[in-house]
Amino acid sequence: MLNFEIKAKYGKARTGIITISHGPIETPAFATVGTLASVKALTPRELKELGTQVIIANTYHLHLQPGEDIIAEAGGLHRFMGWDGPLMTDSGGFQIFSHGAGKEHGVGKIASIFPDEPDRGGHLKKKPGKSLVTVDEDGVDFVSYLDGSRRRFTPESVIQIQAKLGADIILPLDECTSPLHDKEYTFNALERTHRWAVRAVEAFSRYGKSHQSLFGIVQGGAFEDLRKKSADFICQLDFSGFAIGGSLGKSKQEMHSVLEWTIPNLPQEKPRHLLGIGEVEDIFEAVIRGVDTFDCVVPTRTARTGTLLVSDYPRNRMHILNSRFRNDYRPLEENCPCYTCSNFSRAYLRHLFAAKEPTAMVLATIHNLCFMERLMAQIRSAIANGAFQDLMERWTGKTSGLSS
Amino acid sequence: MLNFEIKAKYGKARTGIITISHGPIETPAFATVGTLASVKALTPRELKELGTQVIIANTYHLHLQPGEDIIAEAGGLHRFMGWDGPLMTDSGGFQIFSHGAGKEHGVGKIASIFPDEPDRGGHLKKKPGKSLVTVDEDGVDFVSYLDGSRRRFTPESVIQIQAKLGADIILPLDECTSPLHDKEYTFNALERTHRWAVRAVEAFSRYGKSHQSLFGIVQGGAFEDLRKKSADFICQLDFSGFAIGGSLGKSKQEMHSVLEWTIPNLPQEKPRHLLGIGEVEDIFEAVIRGVDTFDCVVPTRTARTGTLLVSDYPRNRMHILNSRFRNDYRPLEENCPCYTCSNFSRAYLRHLFAAKEPTAMVLATIHNLCFMERLMAQIRSAIANGAFQDLMERWTGKTSGLSS
Repeated sequence: MLNFEIKAKYGKARTGIITISHGPIETPAFATVGTLASVKALTPRELKELGTQVIIANTYHLHLQPGEDIIAEAGGLHRFMGWDGPLMTDSGGFQIFSHGAGKEHGVGKIASIFPDEPDRGGHLKKKPGKSLVTVDEDGVDFVSYLDGSRRRFTPESVIQIQAKLGADIILPLDECTSPLHDKEYTFNALERTHRWAVRAVEAFSRYGKSHQSLFGIVQGGAFEDLRKKSADFICQLDFSGFAIGGSLGKSKQEMHSVLEWTIPNLPQEKPRHLLGIGEVEDIFEAVIRGVDTFDCVVPTRTARTGTLLVSDYPRNRMHILNSRFRNDYRPLEENCPCYTCSNFSRAYLRHLFAAKEPTAMVLATIHNLCFMERLMAQIRSAIANGAFQDLMERWTGKTSGLSS
Repeated sequence: MLNFEIKAKYGKARTGIITISHGPIETPAFATVGTLASVKALTPRELKELGTQVIIANTYHLHLQPGEDIIAEAGGLHRFMGWDGPLMTDSGGFQIFSHGAGKEHGVGKIASIFPDEPDRGGHLKKKPGKSLVTVDEDGVDFVSYLDGSRRRFTPESVIQIQAKLGADIILPLDECTSPLHDKEYTFNALERTHRWAVRAVEAFSRYGKSHQSLFGIVQGGAFEDLRKKSADFICQLDFSGFAIGGSLGKSKQEMHSVLEWTIPNLPQEKPRHLLGIGEVEDIFEAVIRGVDTFDCVVPTRTARTGTLLVSDYPRNRMHILNSRFRNDYRPLEENCPCYTCSNFSRAYLRHLFAAKEPTAMVLATIHNLCFMERLMAQIRSAIANGAFQDLMERWTGKTSGLSS
C-alpha cells in the first residue's frame, strides 16, 4: 500500500511524494523520532501544526514497554499515540547493536577516527561495556535493559510485533555491524541478515496488515563490495522501499562512500531511507547522493538540552544557555514561523532552561522540528527548481563535488 | 485599576467578576501557579484553551532568576512569558518563611498534628534544616538558594520589584509565621507585618504602575484575636483586595477557624484570596466561608508525578502508574472536554509515565488544570443557582455545618 511518485530530479537528488494510507509524505522528508510512541515533550497537534510529515517509533522499545499487545488492543499505534499521519517503526536491529557490539566496541553508527571530534548526537563515542546480546542463525537473544528479563527476536517475531503495532512502513530484523568489526565478521553477518530478509518478506506476506509496507535494509558496513552485494540482493526481494542501515564507516567521508556504493544499485522507482542520520550537512550530502527520507534524534534530543537549530549561527547551533542571550529579546530566529519564535524571546528561552522549567523542552523542540521541516521544504523546492547546489552551498559552505 | 462586582451570594459564598486591565476573572477562581514565569510543562495557548483565568508568579523566585530587570526590559512579565491574561505575583513572604522558620521547624502552611497523615501537596511535613533568613524591623536578609549570594528584601524593594514585573495584582512583603511559633512571636511578627503593610501602600503609591492593584495580606497565625486584629488593621489601608496568608494552624479544622475569624472582618465589596490552598475539599470549605480566589501548586505538581484529578475516584485522585490502568482504554474522565481526555487513554498516559516520557507531564497538567477550571465553574454556577450546599455534598460527602 505504498506509491512513490518522483516529481523532479537534480542529478541523483529527487523530490517526490510517498503515498500511504495515512497520508502523503513529500520527499526529501525528515521522520521525527517518537521512539516510545511519543515525540518527547510535544503533543500530536503541535507536530501537525509545525508540519511534521511522518513519525518513526521503535519496535524494540515498544516491545519492552508497554508491549505490542497493549498497543494492538488500543487499536494500534496511530490510535494509541493520537497520531493519524504517516508512521514508521524501526525494527530494533539498531537497538540490539547498541546493546551488543556497539556496547562492546564503544561505538555508534560511525566510529570516529578523530578521538577529539565532538560527539554530535551520540553517534560517535560510547562508553564500552558488556554485550547484552547473542546473535545466532535463527535470531537474537537479548536482555531487557528495563528489568533484566531474557527476550528473543526472530525475523518472524519482529514482523509479527510490527503487524500488531500497525505502522505504515515497517522494517525487517537486521544485524547492524560495528564500524570496528572486520570484513569477515561483517560478511557473515550480512549473509545472515540477507537470510533474515527472505524470512521477513515471507512473514510479512502472512502477518502484515493491508495498509502496511515493508522496506528492506541494506547492510555491509563500510566495505564497497559488501554494500553492492547487499543492495543487489535486497532489491530483488519484494520490498516497497529500502533503508540504508548499519555501520556507515569511520568518518562522514566514509558515510558518503557507503551511499555512493549502495544507492546506484537500488531501483530508481522506490524510496530510500537513511537510518539515524539528520545533521544539516549530512542531509545535503545524502540527498545529493539519492536519499529520500531520514530520521534522527538530534533535533529533539539537542532541543531538550538547550541547543537550538538555526540557519545562521556557527554550525547551525545556538546554545541558548550562553550568557549572551540573557537579555536578547529577539526570537530564536527572525522569520521563523514556529509558535516559539512567534511568541517568545531568546531571553525567555534562556531563562526557562536556566531554571530547568519543563516548558523549555516544549518550546525548544517545537522550534527544532519546525527548523527541520523548513529545511526539508527548502531542499524539495531547490530540487524542483534546479537550485539544489546553490542551496547546499548556502547551508554548508561547500558543493558536493558530485556532478548534477 | 480593579473592579469587583458580586453577582450572587449563597450565605457567605459569593460569585462575581474581578475586572482588571488584562481581562476579567470570574470568581470563585483558581489562580494557576506559574512561579518562574511559566506554568510547568504547558504553553500559554494550552492554558487559554483549557480555560485558565489567572496565573500567579512569584516575586522571590523571579528576583533570583532571571531578575526583574531582565523582565522589565522585555516589556514586563506578560510579554516575557507570552501571557496576556490576568496575572498576579506573590510577594515572596511565603518563600522566605519556607527557607526560614518553615525550614527550622520542618513545617509548611499547616503543621499536621497527625504525624502519619500523608503529605498532600507538600504542605504538611518538611525536613527541618538551618534557616537561611534573618528578619529585622526594616526588612529581611536571606541567602539565595541558587548561588548562596546574600540578598535583602524590604517592603519598598518588594513593591519596586513587582512594579518592574508588572503583574496586575501584587502583594506586599509579609512575614509568614510558622504554625509552631508561639503567640508572643506571632504577635510581634504581626505588628511588624502591619508596619510593613503601611510602607508597602506608600511605596505602591510611588512605584506602582497604573494597571496594577495591591492586595493586603492578613496574618495572625491560628490565634483568633490576632487574626481579627490583623483583618481590622489591614482593611483600613488602601488595598484593592485581601489575601489570607501565613500559618493556617495545625489542622484543616483550624484552617476553617482562621477563615471564620478573618473574613467577617473584611469588607464585603473587595475580593479575598486564600494563599496556597487548592485541594477540592479545602476550596469548598473556603468558598462557603467567603473566599473568592485561590492558588495552589497541587494540580500542577501532582500532575507531573502521575496523579490525576478526577471527580469520582477515591479522594479525587487517580494514580495513573497503578497497574490496573495498563490496558484501560477509557479517557482519564468520561465527559472531560480537555485535550488529553479527548485524544488519549489511561493506558497511554500510564505508558508515558512508566517510560518517563516528557509528554506525560504535558498531558497530565492539561487535564488537572482543566479539572480545576471545571470545578470552579461548577462552584460559580451553584452559588448563582442556590445549589452550593448540594454541590459541596456531592463533591466532599459533607455539608459545611455553616448556615446558608
